Amino acid sequence: MRTFKLTLAYDGTDYAGWQRQHKAATIQAAVEAALRPIEGRPVTVHGAGRTDAGVHALGQVASVRLAHPLAPPALVRALNARLPPDVRALHAEQVADRFHARFDARGKVYRYRLAAGPVANPLDRRYVWHLPQPVDPAAMQAAGALLRGRHDFAAFQTAAGERGPGSTERTIAALRVVAEPGPAWSAAAGERCGGVIDVEVEGDGFLRHMVRTIVGTLVEVGRARRSVTDVAAVLASGRRARAGPTAPARGLFLVRVDYS
Amino acid sequence: MRTFKLTLAYDGTDYAGWQRQHKAATIQAAVEAALRPIEGRPVTVHGAGRTDAGVHALGQVASVRLAHPLAPPALVRALNARLPPDVRALHAEQVADRFHARFDARGKVYRYRLAAGPVANPLDRRYVWHLPQPVDPAAMQAAGALLRGRHDFAAFQTAAGERGPGSTERTIAALRVVAEPGPAWSAAAGERCGGVIDVEVEGDGFLRHMVRTIVGTLVEVGRARRSVTDVAAVLASGRRARAGPTAPARGLFLVRVDYS
Repeated sequence: MRTFKLTLAYDGTDYAGWQRQHKAATIQAAVEAALRPIEGRPVTVHGAGRTDAGVHALGQVASVRLAHPLAPPALVRALNARLPPDVRALHAEQVADRFHARFDARGKVYRYRLAAGPVANPLDRRYVWHLPQPVDPAAMQAAGALLRGRHDFAAFQTAAGERGPGSTERTIAALRVVAEPGPAWSAAAGERCGGVIDVEVEGDGFLRHMVRTIVGTLVEVGRARRSVTDVAAVLASGRRARAGPTAPARGLFLVRVDYS
Repeated sequence: MRTFKLTLAYDGTDYAGWQRQHKAATIQAAVEAALRPIEGRPVTVHGAGRTDAGVHALGQVASVRLAHPLAPPALVRALNARLPPDVRALHAEQVADRFHARFDARGKVYRYRLAAGPVANPLDRRYVWHLPQPVDPAAMQAAGALLRGRHDFAAFQTAAGERGPGSTERTIAALRVVAEPGPAWSAAAGERCGGVIDVEVEGDGFLRHMVRTIVGTLVEVGRARRSVTDVAAVLASGRRARAGPTAPARGLFLVRVDYS
């Protein structure tokens, strides 16, 4: 048996998230279903991030143990031949047997894409949260800076009922709000649809809905419905009810998973 | 009655093209269906470019005559409230009564998006032609330059049976092949999926499948399956069979329509 580290990209629109479920299509189930005929028996893959329904990935990492003697590039090709077109294996490498994609992850980068403009770009609609009103990215950046560092992020986790066990302390190593003119290929529509604002968050780990709650709160700051400094008060309160709404899943991308 | 010039963007993936058909969803039918309750009677819109099934638009132009006294910005909002999310009205303006989006068009810009890399980016799959082998954009640019100017483009039109009447002479004012690192938001996957190559063509008019046949031929040059100068020979031959394959619809965007 050898252990492989797989890097995956997917359009999460049509999936109920990463984690296998009884009656819904999931990314984990799609990858396991593609591996099964290769390995000749059922296999289990472990994902670094259990992305929610509708969330996308550009660099999800999964680990799997296989007996089949395929070389990594052949494993990538075999997987892509069997995966649906909205899920792709980007890379495979053989790693130490003790490697576990989730438990060994040291950090993750998520990106959330917003577009602010009068009309939603129809070519981006699966991948951004469209805001009809203008937002101020500088105010969002200033508020986001208050979240950097090690804090108790209890105020920025999912509403009760779906919370994981354990500490709600996490470290945000970087939070950047970057305004872009929009994808070059849609610049013609960009004039009316507005540019894209990316919120990129790097941290050692994330509570459920943490990035989306941070984004929902920062958008309220960007719309001047909430002051920059209020974000520090929300953080200190530890109360989910003080934070903004959970931003929709479609704007969120798991960009990268880091290992030591 | 007033005449309006509408600028439209759409994701053509789920449509049988612009032109109204009896049993298929089309963009024209979607726009007319959205206008009907606004106007209170059936209306006909005229599109500048009759884009084929699966082709997208960032700046399609359509003209329509309406009796309803809506101001243009309200017309845009009313349309977007009724259009499906993959079709959007970007702009509306009142124009001279004699304005006709198709007959008055002086030029059009199309863009064709290619991605060359070992793995197809799952987040771009509706909007690019993925090429698993590398292509040389410089060779494509050199070959494309031979198509600039006024020529008989009979070799670069659709196969017989679907051809329009009239001359096959057209003028290509500009043809650029631009290699890009790929959309910034998918840069993580871009390493494996390859950058994007845009073929942008500006002309006074286009034969059916002309841009896609040009792209299919330039890709053969980019893969060194055909010499740069062979493209001039194909053009001179006037024979469709000498040109390359018709590139898939999903990579093609109607970017802009110009009027004098």
